[in-house]
Amino acid sequence: MYFYKEDLINIIVPDRPDPAAAKVIQETLGGQFGEMRTMMQYFFQSANFRGKDKKYRDLIRGVFIEEISHVELVQTTINELLNGSGYTEAGDAGVDGAPLDEAIKHANPHHYIMAAQSSLPVDAGGNPWNGSWVYSHGNLIADLLNNVVLESTGVLQKSRIYEMSSNKTFRETLAFLMVRDNAHQNAFAKALETLGVDWGKLFPIPNYDLNKYPECRKYVELGYHNAQFNFRLDETKIGEIFQGASPSRSQGQLQVTDPPKGFSIPELPEMPNEHSPGLKDMNS
Amino acid sequence: MYFYKEDLINIIVPDRPDPAAAKVIQETLGGQFGEMRTMMQYFFQSANFRGKDKKYRDLIRGVFIEEISHVELVQTTINELLNGSGYTEAGDAGVDGAPLDEAIKHANPHHYIMAAQSSLPVDAGGNPWNGSWVYSHGNLIADLLNNVVLESTGVLQKSRIYEMSSNKTFRETLAFLMVRDNAHQNAFAKALETLGVDWGKLFPIPNYDLNKYPECRKYVELGYHNAQFNFRLDETKIGEIFQGASPSRSQGQLQVTDPPKGFSIPELPEMPNEHSPGLKDMNS
Amino acid sequence: MYFYKEDLINIIVPDRPDPAAAKVIQETLGGQFGEMRTMMQYFFQSANFRGKDKKYRDLIRGVFIEEISHVELVQTTINELLNGSGYTEAGDAGVDGAPLDEAIKHANPHHYIMAAQSSLPVDAGGNPWNGSWVYSHGNLIADLLNNVVLESTGVLQKSRIYEMSSNKTFRETLAFLMVRDNAHQNAFAKALETLGVDWGKLFPIPNYDLNKYPECRKYVELGYHNAQFNFRLDETKIGEIFQGASPSRSQGQLQVTDPPKGFSIPELPEMPNEHSPGLKDMNS
Amino acid sequence: MYFYKEDLINIIVPDRPDPAAAKVIQETLGGQFGEMRTMMQYFFQSANFRGKDKKYRDLIRGVFIEEISHVELVQTTINELLNGSGYTEAGDAGVDGAPLDEAIKHANPHHYIMAAQSSLPVDAGGNPWNGSWVYSHGNLIADLLNNVVLESTGVLQKSRIYEMSSNKTFRETLAFLMVRDNAHQNAFAKALETLGVDWGKLFPIPNYDLNKYPECRKYVELGYHNAQFNFRLDETKIGEIFQGASPSRSQGQLQVTDPPKGFSIPELPEMPNEHSPGLKDMNS
Amino acid sequence: MYFYKEDLINIIVPDRPDPAAAKVIQETLGGQFGEMRTMMQYFFQSANFRGKDKKYRDLIRGVFIEEISHVELVQTTINELLNGSGYTEAGDAGVDGAPLDEAIKHANPHHYIMAAQSSLPVDAGGNPWNGSWVYSHGNLIADLLNNVVLESTGVLQKSRIYEMSSNKTFRETLAFLMVRDNAHQNAFAKALETLGVDWGKLFPIPNYDLNKYPECRKYVELGYHNAQFNFRLDETKIGEIFQGASPSRSQGQLQVTDPPKGFSIPELPEMPNEHSPGLKDMNS
Amino acid sequence: MYFYKEDLINIIVPDRPDPAAAKVIQETLGGQFGEMRTMMQYFFQSANFRGKDKKYRDLIRGVFIEEISHVELVQTTINELLNGSGYTEAGDAGVDGAPLDEAIKHANPHHYIMAAQSSLPVDAGGNPWNGSWVYSHGNLIADLLNNVVLESTGVLQKSRIYEMSSNKTFRETLAFLMVRDNAHQNAFAKALETLGVDWGKLFPIPNYDLNKYPECRKYVELGYHNAQFNFRLDETKIGEIFQGASPSRSQGQLQVTDPPKGFSIPELPEMPNEHSPGLKDMNS
Repeated sequence: MYFYKEDLINIIVPDRPDPAAAKVIQETLGGQFGEMRTMMQYFFQSANFRGKDKKYRDLIRGVFIEEISHVELVQTTINELLNGSGYTEAGDAGVDGAPLDEAIKHANPHHYIMAAQSSLPVDAGGNPWNGSWVYSHGNLIADLLNNVVLESTGVLQKSRIYEMSSNKTFRETLAFLMVRDNAHQNAFAKALETLGVDWGKLFPIPNYDLNKYPECRKYVELGYHNAQFNFRLDETKIGEIFQGASPSRSQGQLQVTDPPKGFSIPELPEMPNEHSPGLKDMNS
Repeated sequence: MYFYKEDLINIIVPDRPDPAAAKVIQETLGGQFGEMRTMMQYFFQSANFRGKDKKYRDLIRGVFIEEISHVELVQTTINELLNGSGYTEAGDAGVDGAPLDEAIKHANPHHYIMAAQSSLPVDAGGNPWNGSWVYSHGNLIADLLNNVVLESTGVLQKSRIYEMSSNKTFRETLAFLMVRDNAHQNAFAKALETLGVDWGKLFPIPNYDLNKYPECRKYVELGYHNAQFNFRLDETKIGEIFQGASPSRSQGQLQVTDPPKGFSIPELPEMPNEHSPGLKDMNS
Repeated sequence: MYFYKEDLINIIVPDRPDPAAAKVIQETLGGQFGEMRTMMQYFFQSANFRGKDKKYRDLIRGVFIEEISHVELVQTTINELLNGSGYTEAGDAGVDGAPLDEAIKHANPHHYIMAAQSSLPVDAGGNPWNGSWVYSHGNLIADLLNNVVLESTGVLQKSRIYEMSSNKTFRETLAFLMVRDNAHQNAFAKALETLGVDWGKLFPIPNYDLNKYPECRKYVELGYHNAQFNFRLDETKIGEIFQGASPSRSQGQLQVTDPPKGFSIPELPEMPNEHSPGLKDMNS
Repeated sequence: MYFYKEDLINIIVPDRPDPAAAKVIQETLGGQFGEMRTMMQYFFQSANFRGKDKKYRDLIRGVFIEEISHVELVQTTINELLNGSGYTEAGDAGVDGAPLDEAIKHANPHHYIMAAQSSLPVDAGGNPWNGSWVYSHGNLIADLLNNVVLESTGVLQKSRIYEMSSNKTFRETLAFLMVRDNAHQNAFAKALETLGVDWGKLFPIPNYDLNKYPECRKYVELGYHNAQFNFRLDETKIGEIFQGASPSRSQGQLQVTDPPKGFSIPELPEMPNEHSPGLKDMNS
Repeated sequence: MYFYKEDLINIIVPDRPDPAAAKVIQETLGGQFGEMRTMMQYFFQSANFRGKDKKYRDLIRGVFIEEISHVELVQTTINELLNGSGYTEAGDAGVDGAPLDEAIKHANPHHYIMAAQSSLPVDAGGNPWNGSWVYSHGNLIADLLNNVVLESTGVLQKSRIYEMSSNKTFRETLAFLMVRDNAHQNAFAKALETLGVDWGKLFPIPNYDLNKYPECRKYVELGYHNAQFNFRLDETKIGEIFQGASPSRSQGQLQVTDPPKGFSIPELPEMPNEHSPGLKDMNS
Repeated sequence: MYFYKEDLINIIVPDRPDPAAAKVIQETLGGQFGEMRTMMQYFFQSANFRGKDKKYRDLIRGVFIEEISHVELVQTTINELLNGSGYTEAGDAGVDGAPLDEAIKHANPHHYIMAAQSSLPVDAGGNPWNGSWVYSHGNLIADLLNNVVLESTGVLQKSRIYEMSSNKTFRETLAFLMVRDNAHQNAFAKALETLGVDWGKLFPIPNYDLNKYPECRKYVELGYHNAQFNFRLDETKIGEIFQGASPSRSQGQLQVTDPPKGFSIPELPEMPNEHSPGLKDMNS
């Protein structure tokens, strides 16, 4: 069973609205290698786990639980990027002009038509998230290798998306997730090490240096690239795998730690012109 | 942030393997009105919430957190229904015969080809779960009405799926979820009552009598149809809505309660013929 | 604007329930070459028509209007095939047993889970109808050729589906539509004749003899293979194309005629166990 | 059976070409809450209707028939918005330059590649219309509630799309449809009133004031928000539901009336450079 | 069995990067009427061929083999259009600024997120290629007619895409393919002539004059519009159909010839910022 | 450019018709981990290759070319399994009875409705092949790892499908492909070895013993699990990678060899009742 505390796993840094950035970071939420995919893939792999060697199940499940918080972080980031991008303060639904005419120029139009300027379960091209992307084939080694590919591709994509806007809200979230993807890549690579693989200098994939991303540095200093946050309220064997030397060239020791302290969720203002939430006069 | 305790929200009652039942109950997991839809819909609605009237956000989020446990319950139910449905104990991958020849006759072939006889993120027809089903339009009233339709259709479908097999594993899970759908229907209907609607005798939808389902009775006696389990580790305003008389004709008083105590997850045996988990000899 | 009279375009011949037949004839409703496709393709082609040569637009639109009635005919046929296929008269939702256990063996499970034993906008494989199938490319010649392929494939598929059950409800509808497809094939082939093509012995495609299908004969005798029913309440130039010798080897003269007199729609009984329509007690 | 008179249900107001507006108003045609969805949903609900209480079937069918005309109105609106948006009068296919280079900047490229600058069965993101969106579950109350959500969401989306361009062709069609959506919302809400619901101040959803939209006012003055146009050529029981006080706060009395008088369909010019219709020289 | 020689079937003319052109020419690669469709459709039609009249199978297969080279030509064209469109030479992943900010304005964002600035199996709207587009219905006449529609639509779309950019890389490839589509249209039209059809003045569809496209002229002078390249290493009966007078008004004699001599594939430079290929330091 | 010789890459062993086997082996043709996926993935990866280290491109392209022959082998296998599965010799389209009634019981209905009893570009569940499955992300290491997962999953699925029928046509093709998948798994694993990975005892994935499959033994004796067939008509650097000790525990030396000698393609008989090919009387 799952429990919740109303905290984000990382900070939302405020910056200007940026609908084009919101469009492309949707890949990180609802794309084939985004957080919804990692969340659901590890959910199915851990629920469908076979056999007695529970340390692998605990590892996969441990990452799964964190991914739920990642989904929430990206949803909130998109909301922040879209908030205030259309109507002016004084905008009124029936007046002349077309307050969204400019806003949708390089935006995903569904952000405005469907979602009241908030996140959607779609990718950067507007394609909806699809269950056929989940890989859970029951062979533990194939599953772990696929997870390595998934985490590697996730960070590869993020390193490209990062170049699409200098918006601070956008880059901070991407930077945090790139560091965490590194940790999760380490987790699955390490699990394969327990089965006898010696990775040599292969990791990290792609071959990036987190310290070149200014926003990443503080997370590296906190050791987040080598930490596995523990969200279990009971015992877990995750530490039997996630320990010892990192399989990445960035080195360091892997360590199971407490989660971050939690960050508050920004409050989205009402948008009467968008009928959102739509309660005005209803309560009067 | 999300936390986990390795417990199922309800019991898995053992019975014989039943791949045809596994196929149709996939609708309850990955169908358009299944638990993955409810989980993701309430996740997006609560993350995208606008305005200060947080009791509605807390209500939607409260149901969302329970739905994660529902997804896990249905995954586990499908695994139990498929377990042992193919190979014999002595079955061996290279021997003569075709141990899965009979098993796939009325089954979803992907249960055997992809999933090592376990659950998939698809519906009863084998179509993958799709993000376009999530309804989160930002107008709170429209969102709540859609949630009422979603819960009503969920229980309507379950009452039909229930008739497709007398398997006990299958029916127990369906029965538990039908009672919980009733509670969630009450939750969203009640939220609309706070906005002035008087539902008359409309609920429950469909017009069923839970007591006619033998497996449901004990859950009704426990008051599960009028309870909202609270999975929050911090404060919540859900009780400002979920209280007072039930909007259903079944009557009773709505009440926020502790979650069930939790049930253990059955261990799935290894299947060497299916190379699942595939560790044999790797560790030697 | 569109007007309606509550009549079917052909008779529904009663026979036993046949869920497997209902499953495969869905191809004729919601498949890539089914009646929903023809209806929507001709709708878009006529609405998007360019230029002054309106006899072509009137021809396409004339076929479009009839296709709406075809969709209704196939929906009703499917309903008749499914009706009574599950529960017994005395069946009751909560009793022991599983009244749908046998029904779904070779059926589309969504006919029972979603549709209360009635028609769905899907094909024989359960895939939903898809707008990308509509061909309306604006080049009249390419559009007409595609329409010839569409009608030819429609009747080719029906001649194969016909062999999948001897059910009378099923075969009567298929037979009527095969004859009408022949007429529509003639319509588009004739339109291409006005542009200079001489088809030789190419038609009909496939090279079938309608008179070998016992159910078809009466429609051939009524001249339905060479008739274009006129559903216009105002003037139409369709007769400028649909006239003269048939382009098919079956010969005869093409002629615009009045529609059939109309047939009554069978009333579907209530299904309290399916909560369909779900009004019981609501009105009391 | 269905009959046709070559008239649009509302006027097409001329204005400049606007491909970006054409792109977003596709949501109203082929989107999940657009006119193709309402048309097909009510088509299936009325064809699959069970039981003797025919006034509900007549209501659903009555709205369905009007929706066919709505689809045609939006198709024609899109054609008008795209017409003249690319080639100059003197444009010639083989000359230097790239006449469509600018046109596609904020357009749906398929409007130019597939559709000869005319409408497509897709949404604002270019996703094709999909049959899985049709809700026809056989439980009349669930169907009616879903119809309320569908009409409410339709008008909510239109009120947002309206802000995306001040083009008159675009806004006039949206305004007419917003008023009609209000009438259809009233129809389904009223049907639920006959089953005992008291809506209080819930309607309209969203909580908009039609009179703030300048183009809407004349339709409100004509009473179109409280009228149900009758397209039946035979008897109908629709008036047994659609009568009495409006369930919306806008008040007034519901009334079944004759349809609008009909408006002529603008003729689209030939586009030789687009080979549309492609007849030039063929007839010579 | 299939064999390969590392040569392109036509030249890649160098020009400036043009991501908007890359986006729209994806239709020619992965669209419903693009080269992947023709390749796979003729693959299935020839593999599934029935009966002894092998000249038709050889014709279809002959076109299929050429289409593999067409797919490769369009992939390479897209790569050339995207190459150099983002990062500057000195660009570095972690520096300030956002090197892709401008590049993605009118681009397909997946060209940058997924494909390291290279081709994807999608259409101009970003929709993935789909197997349901393949038409192989087993009736040879219907298959041939569908192939005529496919080739006609392919060239119709290319004549429209051609107008979307004056980029030389883009137009040269389109021009070559338009001439080859004409040859393939002739091939299938001629096959239908052997079955008795007299096409009159119907072809080419659309009614274009290849000589008006400057880039096409040289290919017309080489006779490519009336030639069928032979890629068979054994005997083929294709010449029994592809001979005699062209069915197009452009006239000339059809002739089976040797393939073009082959053109070298441009080398794509490494992109360290894109981690592509990602080998740097790995080999050190 | 691509060249062709009309030979299959392996033998088609005759056996009885088996439509259920045809249905499930479609996964190997059009499934997410089937031969169409491997073919298109390696096509895109080799066409989009960046940089000067051409031995990797040659390796990927070499496997791609073989995969075209694999697609043809599975198409032909499916045709053989379906051939004769419906109509009797004397079957006649118009007679009483329903010759396909039994055939479709456990079959994919589209094999009979669309494909004239032959192969389709779909998976075992009837879902069409989809371009979004192609992984070509431009990072060579991630691409190679994904290829390892793809080949491993391909053989894992085949080892499960193998158990679904004892049909000889079916098993012979599966056995040949399992051995070839092993060779391709070796190819990509070896490429990663050149980048420093030491796989230990990880391969093969899954952990199977080819010699337990009776049909596999002769291919193992021929050394097919350690051979890379060379289909290039010019030079290739594939041998710079594909050489030395196998990365699998099955051991042996990797070696580039000539392709198999080729096997004749069985001729499919005409099916007049299916109008396939549909030429009867057309040529008279």
